Amino acid sequence: MLTLSSKAIEMPASPIRKLVPYADAAKKRGVKVFHLNIGQPDIDSPECVMEAIRNVRLNNLAYTNSAGLESYRKGLAKYYNNLGIDVDFSQIMITTSGSEAVLFALSVICDADDEVIVMEPFYTNYRAFAIQNGVKLVPVSTKIDDGFQVPPMEEFDKYITPKTKAILICNPGNPTGTLYSKESLQKLGEIVKKHNIFLLSDEVYREFCYSDQPHFSAMQLGGLEQNVLLLDSVSKRYSMCGARIGCVVTKNKEVFDAMMKFAQARLCSPVVDQMAAEAALDTPESYFAAVKAEYIHRRDVMVEMLNKIPGVFTPKPMGAFYTIARLPVDDAEKFATWMLEEFNYNGETTMVAPAAGFYATAGTGTDEVRLAYVLNVEDIKHAIKCLEEGLKVYPGRKI
Amino acid sequence: MLTLSSKAIEMPASPIRKLVPYADAAKKRGVKVFHLNIGQPDIDSPECVMEAIRNVRLNNLAYTNSAGLESYRKGLAKYYNNLGIDVDFSQIMITTSGSEAVLFALSVICDADDEVIVMEPFYTNYRAFAIQNGVKLVPVSTKIDDGFQVPPMEEFDKYITPKTKAILICNPGNPTGTLYSKESLQKLGEIVKKHNIFLLSDEVYREFCYSDQPHFSAMQLGGLEQNVLLLDSVSKRYSMCGARIGCVVTKNKEVFDAMMKFAQARLCSPVVDQMAAEAALDTPESYFAAVKAEYIHRRDVMVEMLNKIPGVFTPKPMGAFYTIARLPVDDAEKFATWMLEEFNYNGETTMVAPAAGFYATAGTGTDEVRLAYVLNVEDIKHAIKCLEEGLKVYPGRKI
Repeated sequence: MLTLSSKAIEMPASPIRKLVPYADAAKKRGVKVFHLNIGQPDIDSPECVMEAIRNVRLNNLAYTNSAGLESYRKGLAKYYNNLGIDVDFSQIMITTSGSEAVLFALSVICDADDEVIVMEPFYTNYRAFAIQNGVKLVPVSTKIDDGFQVPPMEEFDKYITPKTKAILICNPGNPTGTLYSKESLQKLGEIVKKHNIFLLSDEVYREFCYSDQPHFSAMQLGGLEQNVLLLDSVSKRYSMCGARIGCVVTKNKEVFDAMMKFAQARLCSPVVDQMAAEAALDTPESYFAAVKAEYIHRRDVMVEMLNKIPGVFTPKPMGAFYTIARLPVDDAEKFATWMLEEFNYNGETTMVAPAAGFYATAGTGTDEVRLAYVLNVEDIKHAIKCLEEGLKVYPGRKI
Repeated sequence: MLTLSSKAIEMPASPIRKLVPYADAAKKRGVKVFHLNIGQPDIDSPECVMEAIRNVRLNNLAYTNSAGLESYRKGLAKYYNNLGIDVDFSQIMITTSGSEAVLFALSVICDADDEVIVMEPFYTNYRAFAIQNGVKLVPVSTKIDDGFQVPPMEEFDKYITPKTKAILICNPGNPTGTLYSKESLQKLGEIVKKHNIFLLSDEVYREFCYSDQPHFSAMQLGGLEQNVLLLDSVSKRYSMCGARIGCVVTKNKEVFDAMMKFAQARLCSPVVDQMAAEAALDTPESYFAAVKAEYIHRRDVMVEMLNKIPGVFTPKPMGAFYTIARLPVDDAEKFATWMLEEFNYNGETTMVAPAAGFYATAGTGTDEVRLAYVLNVEDIKHAIKCLEEGLKVYPGRKI
């Protein structure tokens, strides 16, 4: 029978893209749409990256090592060492994007029906990768009112069962922008140690931290060398989302060797992109300083404007380039759709991502939206102004 | 507990790479090793591909559409149309390599414990992708003596159960080099139609056909529009294995839409590589003519030399750039290891891939090896001469 698999049926359509047809229709009507809905930075990739691509002098785009170009892995090891992460290149496996890093990690440690704990709201594609592996994501709630910080240890204890294989975190976080402190990481580390489970730490937004403290990586937790898998990607760090280069870092040799079998099955990661990612390691500090200053400026403008709107609350995110805002509406998805379908302010409107798609617990996050500050400050001002004006007249407004 | 998943344990290490340490050791001893073991062509990528990479003028390597660059999909549709395959660009999904094409296909149509029929010997990584999806590969035997042709329909009927979701073929085939005729395809089509299952047709070696007849694609089978998924890749066609660009083509909209959800989860395929693959569509006919002439020459030299060695038999493959040879040895893996560890002829030896790794039925193919004619003719002559001399003195030689 020509039937689909149950995972194909269970797989959710991307919640971020659900409203795209409404945005397209709005544009057709001549309305300018500000896209705060997706995490596609408008920042240029570093010049050294584009230069490396233009300078590719291969005659044959041949397969490379399944674990990645050795020179790139060695360069990456240095990058991590400079951040205080003690790792050897042999503990780094290059993956075809951070997505594959998550997939490899889940595939290697989880059987069908195993459980992985995530703090919700969480990156929506974790759900897709879990479904692909038959894994059950078990959400531990975090709250907008305290900026989605790590809840007390007892909260985790409640959800850990013999089927729990790992806690999966994203730090700084998508979709919340929350940055976990060293103390929070240590608390998580204790839970991981207590139950002897894996800690999967997605740190793709590492370079986007806006506190005075340096980013503290899960790889820096003492005594958890066998438990921690660092999941990483060059997509956001160097604004090269289209390169599809990530990696998994782990000192657990058994896990690494098992991943190697998955990596060999798909042969290798794209070679020109690996060369570009290797070149990206030479990105000057000034690039990051400028990018960071720009994001801080955007965040400050966005957060300040949002919190001035009656009934709206957003925490001040200390990382990444997202924030979640609570809106005075009946249903954020209805509101987001209405903004595209029915509303415009001087010919402009704003597209946001309804936050319910980032929650696993039904009925939560329904009055929240995720906003990505990936537009320039002038556009952000227009975009938030549109939101403000929309909220004034939206029929489903809660008083 | 920090345990591996059962699929990580079940996943086989690459049989092709198993002997690499022996080859490395041989090289360290100063022995020249001819690699007939892997399908990495030594042919240059077309100049237009490398030119396209050097001409990338993007400032930001941004995400692209999850189904692939529309211009590339449209170009690919034209490429297929020119081959007599009637397909619209909306039925083409770009994947990150042919590997992902196989993975998507299996993920979307198979639940755990579902069965997929393959003709053995088969491409070894099918097994890895099956394990990743909990799918059972059910082998139907083909025989070296008739050049691994499609067996009678009754053979398939024997193995089809209510759990059978698809037949997966590779045409022309890796590891056999076998090219299926239009009549063979039609025979397969009848089985597929009779049982109303899917036909997954891996045609990545389409351009490497050495018969007078044009390649006949599974997409050209009448009345199977809903059943056929064409799996493809640019790796071999344009000698750009390191680009990692493939595609799935299907007229089954339900399957396409389901795959789209998997594609969206991993966001997109690498953008520069898609641009390079799009440029590859302009590869002049003269490139293929030269490549084909070269491969035919190599094949003829290799097959003739092999069949002159006492006790050796190989069919004359009509496609791809592999052949399987039966050797007069106790065990082909032992022989292949011995060739690297113990033997050299004038300081040279040959590395081959033991064929047992391409069979699912235990104990089959143990006296066969796969040879890839990916070296120039002079090297092939040396390599086969080494095999001949090795066979003369190998202690496990069968009389």
